[in-house]
Amino acid sequence: MLTDFYEITMSNGYMSASVADTAAYFDLFFREVPDGGGFAIMAGLEQAIGYLKNLRFSESDIEFLRKKGMREDYLNYLRDFKFSCDVWAIPEGTPIFPGEPVLKVRGPVIQAQFVETALLICINHQSLIATKANRVVRAAQGRAVMEFGSRRAQGFDGAVLGARAAYIGGCVGTACTLDEIMFGVPALGTMAHSWVQLFDSEILAFKAYAREYPAKCTLLVDTYDTLKSGVPNAISTFDEVLKPLGCRPAGIRIDSGDIAYLSRKAREMLDEAGYPDCKIVASNALDEYLIRDMISQGARVDSFGVGERLVTSASSPVFGGVYKLCAVERDGEIVPKIKISGNVTKITTPCDKNVYRLYDRETGKAIADILTVSHEIINEDEPYELFHPEFTWKRKMVSNFTARPLLEKIFTGGECVYECPPLSEIRAYCAAQVETLWDEVLRFENPHKYYVDLSQELWDEKQRMISEYKKQG
Amino acid sequence: MLTDFYEITMSNGYMSASVADTAAYFDLFFREVPDGGGFAIMAGLEQAIGYLKNLRFSESDIEFLRKKGMREDYLNYLRDFKFSCDVWAIPEGTPIFPGEPVLKVRGPVIQAQFVETALLICINHQSLIATKANRVVRAAQGRAVMEFGSRRAQGFDGAVLGARAAYIGGCVGTACTLDEIMFGVPALGTMAHSWVQLFDSEILAFKAYAREYPAKCTLLVDTYDTLKSGVPNAISTFDEVLKPLGCRPAGIRIDSGDIAYLSRKAREMLDEAGYPDCKIVASNALDEYLIRDMISQGARVDSFGVGERLVTSASSPVFGGVYKLCAVERDGEIVPKIKISGNVTKITTPCDKNVYRLYDRETGKAIADILTVSHEIINEDEPYELFHPEFTWKRKMVSNFTARPLLEKIFTGGECVYECPPLSEIRAYCAAQVETLWDEVLRFENPHKYYVDLSQELWDEKQRMISEYKKQG
Repeated sequence: MLTDFYEITMSNGYMSASVADTAAYFDLFFREVPDGGGFAIMAGLEQAIGYLKNLRFSESDIEFLRKKGMREDYLNYLRDFKFSCDVWAIPEGTPIFPGEPVLKVRGPVIQAQFVETALLICINHQSLIATKANRVVRAAQGRAVMEFGSRRAQGFDGAVLGARAAYIGGCVGTACTLDEIMFGVPALGTMAHSWVQLFDSEILAFKAYAREYPAKCTLLVDTYDTLKSGVPNAISTFDEVLKPLGCRPAGIRIDSGDIAYLSRKAREMLDEAGYPDCKIVASNALDEYLIRDMISQGARVDSFGVGERLVTSASSPVFGGVYKLCAVERDGEIVPKIKISGNVTKITTPCDKNVYRLYDRETGKAIADILTVSHEIINEDEPYELFHPEFTWKRKMVSNFTARPLLEKIFTGGECVYECPPLSEIRAYCAAQVETLWDEVLRFENPHKYYVDLSQELWDEKQRMISEYKKQG
Repeated sequence: MLTDFYEITMSNGYMSASVADTAAYFDLFFREVPDGGGFAIMAGLEQAIGYLKNLRFSESDIEFLRKKGMREDYLNYLRDFKFSCDVWAIPEGTPIFPGEPVLKVRGPVIQAQFVETALLICINHQSLIATKANRVVRAAQGRAVMEFGSRRAQGFDGAVLGARAAYIGGCVGTACTLDEIMFGVPALGTMAHSWVQLFDSEILAFKAYAREYPAKCTLLVDTYDTLKSGVPNAISTFDEVLKPLGCRPAGIRIDSGDIAYLSRKAREMLDEAGYPDCKIVASNALDEYLIRDMISQGARVDSFGVGERLVTSASSPVFGGVYKLCAVERDGEIVPKIKISGNVTKITTPCDKNVYRLYDRETGKAIADILTVSHEIINEDEPYELFHPEFTWKRKMVSNFTARPLLEKIFTGGECVYECPPLSEIRAYCAAQVETLWDEVLRFENPHKYYVDLSQELWDEKQRMISEYKKQG
């Protein structure tokens, strides 16, 4: 019942209008990349599949809907509900672009409509966080990034699923313990300021920690004064507790102050004390911009703990995925559907569609994505002409490419036919796929707009429908 | 197990350092109001209570922690875990201000530490959304605001608990069906563009809807062209379907285009057609700023559906609540604790504290909040001197006030002693409490900074501790 109430009024209404069984095609797509970036990362599919697999209605749900005035035949339908749609989706970890269907549902409109809200929540949320995480990870230029944001997440699964998505995007681990249990994302964590405060002095706190965790001793050094007390007390602890045990320190963490400056000074102090292998971890409201700046200022940071600004994608906290009707079946034929609307950018692309990604055979780089009417086939052995869907005089002939269909079959007639890969595989696949994008698409500011083009047939059909509606209006 | 891993390393470590039973006092407070506003709204307490009531550890949790290297005595402790802390909190719906404890935990540090992450998630998330909702509702100047953002929420409970918080903040309902079932928040919804597209024409779609829902017929008019087809078709539907049934239309909804302009035109058309009672609903990425602008431009909108920018608090998506140790007990005495840190704004206020809100007896308006050491009593019969905690020469004598202690007892020795009020009561209480704030505190830009002052005794203690640590450093 986690669904917008209008899904209910509509599906109930489809029944009363005797169109409930009409086969409908819905596209899930987004219109803008968060943070003005060049691409997003697909994520959340596993949870969307889980939702569809478990979709059914309890007697109390049905009683509730009866009180809300729904029809008895509709309630009976829900009582015996069995999901029977076909679903296709782009696998998690794939770079995705505005305007292309990243998930597609075909089935009785009463069902295909109903699942809109939950599918959007799954894909919008995790794609947002995976996309942000990938930006932060790229800013860190090979240094490890840990997701530390649970406490500032927007709700429990904002935290848990956010950490899952962050891992897909390239984080090495999370503070959120539940993610290791549920998804195998490494859970990490050492101490808070309260640990240091609880003891009668900083050095007593450090030593107590080092005695319990000699093999992985990372100390938080900014409770009182980072350079005057924190780092010196950490070094004494390493000398007096770890050395006799034959252990090397894992690291120190700085959570406030001027991290570029403090990290350089701390590095010097650690090096002089004989701990060049002791890592420096930085945290404190970081994001891709601050990390990039810190590195350019010569910060000596080995890894970053990134919290609230990652787990909420704070600088761009909405992933605007939508779910739109693009076709229906009438007497066995597919009839395309379009939404015109007052805002030009909100005009939809009609038809049951496929998405192909063209890769250059020589460089391995992605050239463009092509939306086609679903029956079209792209012949890899012939040159293919790309053209801009608005400025159609912008044309480009490509050859020597492979054309990879991006949408995979997930459900057939309501049966799940897709096995979600392990999360570590998704993460590795994501990193490899991001490698196929040109640097111009990867940059943070003013990235090159990757081509998402329509095939000639699809473009023609879309224009035909727009003019038809404009004639009527 | 939805907890930061460092809560586990620390609580395990407290056991090994034989300090697990030390009674500790933690404050949950925040440092900045989202959107630069003058106040926030407390929310999320009911979920925090639910977490604490149900906190226990399964055998598989314990097995997991064993593999992560935790001590056997710690694992045994978790196996028999029984929450035994005292908890105080400011009730949901109360306006809250930076720097004051909105929730306070006292108990064995091993427990009081562990609950940090989950408490912060509950309070941070819902306070964020309730605060944003209250801004949006105030911008609408008495017009109804509905929460429509589930699909863009950050996860499932981002949607469900976000809608709960939005209701506390003053929304009249939500699109999220589950909220009515779980919390009694009215769930509302009519149709999407897909309803209109599914039928062979807009008018057929409208008529089918009107036949099923004659008594609450709200039609979405922007699928093709709002003024040329949507509104005329809606009027025809009202004439041809509703009128014969003796029903009046509920409304039309505009979801794209220039809503200020379209709503004025639509209003004229509806009035001329004899439907002055037909409401106009506006949606499409609204927030408090756009609503304020629309109203000032003479938009004829009766109610607003507010989605992604409310449910994620998009312009300010992080509520920075923290949870800090402020005291411990040693041999029956309360020993205050402080964190100094590199950033002055991150210095904490030590001691076990209370929070009083002073209301002017004459106007009923809130004058200031006072943090006191917990044993202090504010005598309402004597004038009270307020002073600015930084610029201590700024002083003000107040009299003829009532002093209301804001923190209520929630748990006593691990037993819940608080009954959460029904949500509609919280919502009404919130509206009434916001009324006690001066207009200068309520405004969106550059609000007056409401006084959150320390009592003389608390101020003295804080200064004493800062100088002491500075001497050591």
